[in-house]
Formats: sequence, C-alpha cells, structure tokens
Amino acid sequence: MSLLTAPKPVIAVVGVGAVGGYYGAKLIRAGHDVHLLLRADYEAVRRDGLNVRSDVEEGFHLPSGELRVYSDPADAPKADLVLVCLKATGNAAYEPLVGPLLKDDSTILTIQNGLGNEDQLADLFGADRVTGGMAFVCIHRTGPGLIHHIDHGFLKIGEHVPAGGSPPGATPRVERAAELFRSAGVRCDVLDDLRRGRWEKLLWNIPFNGLGAALDLATDRLIGSADGVALLTAIMREVAAVAAADGVPLPPELIDRQITHTATMGAYRSSMQLDRQAGRPLEVEAILGEPVRRAQKLGVPVPATEALYRMVRLMDPAGAAAGQ
Amino acid sequence: MSLLTAPKPVIAVVGVGAVGGYYGAKLIRAGHDVHLLLRADYEAVRRDGLNVRSDVEEGFHLPSGELRVYSDPADAPKADLVLVCLKATGNAAYEPLVGPLLKDDSTILTIQNGLGNEDQLADLFGADRVTGGMAFVCIHRTGPGLIHHIDHGFLKIGEHVPAGGSPPGATPRVERAAELFRSAGVRCDVLDDLRRGRWEKLLWNIPFNGLGAALDLATDRLIGSADGVALLTAIMREVAAVAAADGVPLPPELIDRQITHTATMGAYRSSMQLDRQAGRPLEVEAILGEPVRRAQKLGVPVPATEALYRMVRLMDPAGAAAGQ
Repeated sequence: MSLLTAPKPVIAVVGVGAVGGYYGAKLIRAGHDVHLLLRADYEAVRRDGLNVRSDVEEGFHLPSGELRVYSDPADAPKADLVLVCLKATGNAAYEPLVGPLLKDDSTILTIQNGLGNEDQLADLFGADRVTGGMAFVCIHRTGPGLIHHIDHGFLKIGEHVPAGGSPPGATPRVERAAELFRSAGVRCDVLDDLRRGRWEKLLWNIPFNGLGAALDLATDRLIGSADGVALLTAIMREVAAVAAADGVPLPPELIDRQITHTATMGAYRSSMQLDRQAGRPLEVEAILGEPVRRAQKLGVPVPATEALYRMVRLMDPAGAAAGQ
Repeated sequence: MSLLTAPKPVIAVVGVGAVGGYYGAKLIRAGHDVHLLLRADYEAVRRDGLNVRSDVEEGFHLPSGELRVYSDPADAPKADLVLVCLKATGNAAYEPLVGPLLKDDSTILTIQNGLGNEDQLADLFGADRVTGGMAFVCIHRTGPGLIHHIDHGFLKIGEHVPAGGSPPGATPRVERAAELFRSAGVRCDVLDDLRRGRWEKLLWNIPFNGLGAALDLATDRLIGSADGVALLTAIMREVAAVAAADGVPLPPELIDRQITHTATMGAYRSSMQLDRQAGRPLEVEAILGEPVRRAQKLGVPVPATEALYRMVRLMDPAGAAAGQ
C-alpha cells in the first residue's frame, strides 16, 4: 500500500509545532490516520491533547484519547506520507526522525521555510520520494500543543526539482496529498513547478523575515516609510534576479504586489522576528543562507541580501550562545 | 586682525557638547581667548562651569568665572576662528549660530562627523573661509558641561576642497589653527588633502557607526565573528571605491588595519549607537546619507552601504518621532 493505493494512508507528522500541529490536527479531525512525532512537547500533548484557537475560523480541541503520539519514531508505523514540519534549524535531525518512518514507497512532504530542505531530504533518503510545499498561514505555537491560528492557511505543494532537473508537473501522488488536505478543509494548490512557489515565497520571506530579525521591526514599520520600501525593493530585486537565474523568472510586478499585500497585514511580526524576541535559534540558513549560496553558485551578485544575511547571523541567539 | 595676524585670536566655539567642550576647555586652560556658544546647556554651564574627567590624562575643572558663555551669538564678539562642533543633526542652525560671529576675515573650522559639513558651510558663508577637521577621540558628554574623556584626542585639520577642486595643501591659516591646539596640549596634524582624512575616517565610521546604530551592537560583537568581519569588509570596500572615484584612493591594506585596530578598543559603542540607545537623533545623513549620495553622483554602486543607510534611517529616533 502506498499514498496512491491506500484507501486510508498512514500519515506521520514530524515536528508538531505551529505548522505541524495545525495541519496535523485538521487531518485528525477529518478522520485520517495520523501519527504525531514529538520531542519536547511529547508529555504535554499526550496528557492534554492538541488545541487550535483561531481568530478567523472555528477552534477545536483534540483530547489525548483521539491522538496517536510518539516520542520515538521506531514506535510509530511506517508511513505512506511523512509530513516534515520541523523548524529548519532542526534539519540535523532529519535522519533519526524521518528515517525510521520510511518504507520503500513512502512519500516525504516537507512543509518548511526556505530553500534547501528538499535537497537535504533527497540527499538522505533519495530524490524520488521527496515532495515539498509552503504554508501560507499566520500561526503561532503559544505552548505545548497550543496553536493560535491568526489568519489564512492554504498550502501549495509540488514535486521536488533536483538541481539542473526539469519540473515533472503535477504528479498523482502530489494530487493525492492535496486531496487529503482538501478533505480536511485546507485549501491546497498543486504546483507545476515547486521552485516557482519557493522563490515567490522567498521574495517575501528574505526581506521581511531578514529585516524583521535584524532590526526587530514588524511589517508595518518596514513598509511605512520610503526608506523601508526602498530597502525591501532593493533586496527583492536581488532575490528576483537569483530566481530568474535559477530558472524561475518572476513577474516584475510581484514585488509591488507583495509590498501592497503586506500593508493589509498590520503590525505583523515575521516568524524570525518572533524567534529573535523569544531567544530561539533563527531559520537564517534556510531563509537567507541557502538563497545567498545559490546566488553565488549562479554568479548573481546579491550584496544587500548578503549583508542582511550576515546581520541576521550576528543577531541569531544560537550564534550568540555559541560565542560567535 | 585675523587668525594669522592676531597675537591672541578670538576663538568662538559653536556647540559645546563632548567635542566642543573638550577642545574648548583645553584652549581656555591654555589661556586662549575663547567664547562658548551654547543652547540647551547655557544656564548649567554659566552656573557650574566646564568639567573634564579623563581616564587617561589629568582631568580639570573650569569654574564659570573663567568662561565666557553666550546663548545668543549676537552677544559674542566677532571671531577670528569659529570652531563648529555641533552634532551634524543640528546643521540647520549653521546660519543663525555661525553667521553673527563672522567678519570679513573669519576662518571657520568645522570639527564634525561625516561628509558634507564643509560644503554646507561654504554654501552659506563662502568656500574661501571654510576649513575642516576630524577629532580622533573617545569622549562622551555625561551632562551639561560634563565631559568624560576615555581615550585619544588628536585632531587632523585641513583646507576645504570644493567639489572638482584641487587640495591647496597646508595653508598658513590651517598651520596657525594647528599651533593653537598644540599650545593647548592637543596633537594636531595638518592635512595636505582634507578629503583623504574624511574618507579614511568614513571608512571606519560608515560600517561601525552604521551597524552599531542599526543592530545596537558594540565593536567587539561586530569584529568578533567571521560574519561581522565579512560584513564590515564588504561595506568598507564599497566606501573605498567611492573614495577612489572621489579622487582619494586609499591603501588597500587600510581595511584590515582598521579592523585590527578596532580589536584594541574592546566593547566600544560608536557615537551613533549611543545616540540610538539614548533616543537622540542620529547623524545618519552626515555619516551615511552624504557618502551614498556622493557614490550615486560618481556612479559607484554601493548596495550594501545603501541598505545600511536605509536601515539606520528606519532606526533613527528622529524619524520614528516624525512618524516615518
């Protein structure tokens, strides 16, 4: 049985923070066969279950009796679909956390921030089983198993495109994964080219997460002055140039459109700004480091983005803790 | 009588903060004819005098009876030498503060941070009377008339070089001004080309003041990691390229030398970082804005420096107060 043939595929969720908790809970509520892999929050979730509070849709609680939770992936069943929802700072744990869940025909779907997650999973487990996606959702983990959903929530998923490869388009297994989410009330678009989705999201994530973390400024302060807009635009233009060199030319008007859209978000603090404020490690390599290295590999100069990358590393609580 | 012919030239000090207070007090102690122009600190200094505390040389106090202080420049005598020691954020007051002190042969010597101060003074009062200099001193104003001298203190001064002009070398009036400082125990070098001195200092000031203010990091944090050194070096290379296009090629090893020298300064907080911490307006236009505009005029790309300029403006308490 596989994701394509199983009437009720076995779904494992690795990393039950905000994203893994939110989508995992929705799949469970819809009656799917979901197995949650937790580390720090294992005891609390096993005791108290999962709770989703939402500002824009009905909240719900899943008591522990309705959950299958594991602290050791060896105790969980092999999965048809492994949803990887770790913070990208935890990717060093891919092998011990994901490996034991895999059988020959398992599909991995990473829903993480930034660039390079699919490549790392492909290196470890084979490119042919890797798919990826982006969550467009405003969401926070307010405590173990406590998820505060603020807005949005749709997914875009697609097949991993190895370096130098061509996008295979919408495959049956990605369509099937999308169906699972849709059956749980989650809008899920299937991308013909995952790279396009990644770069479109990076176009926003690099400046807003980067500047949010470096300067500790929310989105309203960044778009609220001519200086902020000039700064955002300069960085976004560099990102768009890398995307184009990477085979994904973005429409030029996307920069203005993303800035205009951000104005509707109020004083939104990006995830990396929140991580900085909470003293947590920053997803700086996935969101900024990998794109800068991709630019270098492609010979595209990104001086402002590279400066921002260095600044965020200087402000990274993980770096400071390591005495860098 | 002029700066060159007067046995005891009339010296006016405009702006008695850290720099104006320190050099003004030294000149007064050496018996020179010094007139201090103050605004906010006028009453306090008229009552309590000037006090210089130093970590590296003997401190001293000048009681009010030994000072000539003015809140209105119309009350002060016309000066042979006008030392301008305002914060560059106060340059809008050049005309009302400096104008009334001038006679036909007055010499203006601006000892302020950044680029463009001489040009602004030249526009107002004529290029032929403007000279300028840099203070290499670690110094703070801890209260009205209270100066805390931490280290160093020498000056480099020279003739203003208008845009497109050639440096006239060491002129008698600049030599004479240097003598006055030397007679007060202040090392003072005369520059053949003031622009070289300005750009050498900007090579340090732009990255260290800029990053100090944008990120609220002291020098030890900036030079203490490979990321910080890479970031500083990228910005300094851009600054050196502008200096070269402006007619002042700097020796390539100066970048490493300045970074190495900064390591001897410990956890030094630049003036702009201190201003940020105190909620004071930042000298962002003199230190970053003017150099960026000079680069644009000269057609030299400075993307990292321009990004830093925008970031510092975003963090400027003056900008935030104005609701930018």
